[in-house]
Amino acid sequence: MSGWVAIVGLGPGRESLVTPEVRSVLADATDVIGYIPYVKRITPRDGLTLHASDNRVEIDRATHALTLAQSGARVVVVSSGDPGVFAMASAVFEAYEAQPRFADVPITVHPGITAMLAASAALGAPLGHDFCCINLSDNLKPWSVIENRLRMAARGDFAMAFYNPRSKSRPVQFGHALAILREECAPGTLISFARNVSHDDQRLVTVPLSEATEDMADMRTLVIVGNSATRRVGPYLYTPRSAEA
Amino acid sequence: MSGWVAIVGLGPGRESLVTPEVRSVLADATDVIGYIPYVKRITPRDGLTLHASDNRVEIDRATHALTLAQSGARVVVVSSGDPGVFAMASAVFEAYEAQPRFADVPITVHPGITAMLAASAALGAPLGHDFCCINLSDNLKPWSVIENRLRMAARGDFAMAFYNPRSKSRPVQFGHALAILREECAPGTLISFARNVSHDDQRLVTVPLSEATEDMADMRTLVIVGNSATRRVGPYLYTPRSAEA
Repeated sequence: MSGWVAIVGLGPGRESLVTPEVRSVLADATDVIGYIPYVKRITPRDGLTLHASDNRVEIDRATHALTLAQSGARVVVVSSGDPGVFAMASAVFEAYEAQPRFADVPITVHPGITAMLAASAALGAPLGHDFCCINLSDNLKPWSVIENRLRMAARGDFAMAFYNPRSKSRPVQFGHALAILREECAPGTLISFARNVSHDDQRLVTVPLSEATEDMADMRTLVIVGNSATRRVGPYLYTPRSAEA
Repeated sequence: MSGWVAIVGLGPGRESLVTPEVRSVLADATDVIGYIPYVKRITPRDGLTLHASDNRVEIDRATHALTLAQSGARVVVVSSGDPGVFAMASAVFEAYEAQPRFADVPITVHPGITAMLAASAALGAPLGHDFCCINLSDNLKPWSVIENRLRMAARGDFAMAFYNPRSKSRPVQFGHALAILREECAPGTLISFARNVSHDDQRLVTVPLSEATEDMADMRTLVIVGNSATRRVGPYLYTPRSAEA
């Protein structure tokens, strides 16, 4: 058996953010598997089969990748951003763990630029000091876990990056998150909404927490909450490297 | 004035992890400024002046970059990893804020693969769920802030990535951090030491927290602490996407 699974990150969207390593792995592949919009980013070529699937079938997709690799295919599972941050890498390892028949399939992970780093760069440097990265979706964890994490992150005076803040099927959770932040953080804490990061229609909005509303976020928004020292300077937003006791 | 400052991330070391965007910015530069080992990674060419400086002179380096740009130079400030994660971006904005004469210098930030994402990929997917990113150096913040953040991160059951865990001038802090983690986390919590991530001599070691010792980390080590669900499967380490209340 010479097949393998490589889980790669395509970055947040701009093609110049795809690493040469990921390009090289894609050039070696016989099969590409992923969510429809990510597979659309792959240029078709002879000898490469593209398998696009809908959202929320991550374990099916992972099992498909492992099955193809076991029969000799060189399979690339594509994620946007980084594959290890709220993306396909954990799903592939879950499928691998659940099905011992895949024990001999080699798996590699190839990092990518995750949305929070692209958003932070576009804004300035709001994640330049200690920070937390939280998936606000309660599809795979109870809201109580998210609430506790928001409170602990705030009490640690961490900056925060939120993935999946809000979607059509989860319209109210982000409002709850804002309410928790208003209990835990000063009203002047800066919060940024970075929509379609690194795409041509990228949109950046920064407001004090007191002025943030839930409709500022949607599925395509990465949210960054500053720590107590995060501030604006000219057109930029940044967090200083130092902190006071 | 047509000068500018671009702050770029060279990734953790492997050249195939440098983004095409960063290569393109470097191709446009007249000057490159940075810490000696990072400037060494830049290929010299006619028309490009390399300015390498020692560690811990970040504000001098940032001021130098802004000064050159103000007189028309196209200056790239190089960081390893991502420039916005414990690297030069915040230092440049600090210098920009402190010296109003630089108000008109355009500054851009170009993301890179930060060490924790490369380490996570090399290990499997230990950062596949909510996590915190903490700089353990107390050069720019009091130890009490770090201690509180470690406790809050543990009480939120976040996975954690530690930058700068230990150096010759700070030999004891990592031992203190381990003692705090032992108070807050189960002894079986998995902790990984990723040394020289993405370099040819990369070394990965994962042990239960109960077996971790301070000499497992040095200046070139990125430390990842799993959450309560992080586990091994075959040769991989990963954190499932779901969490229990």
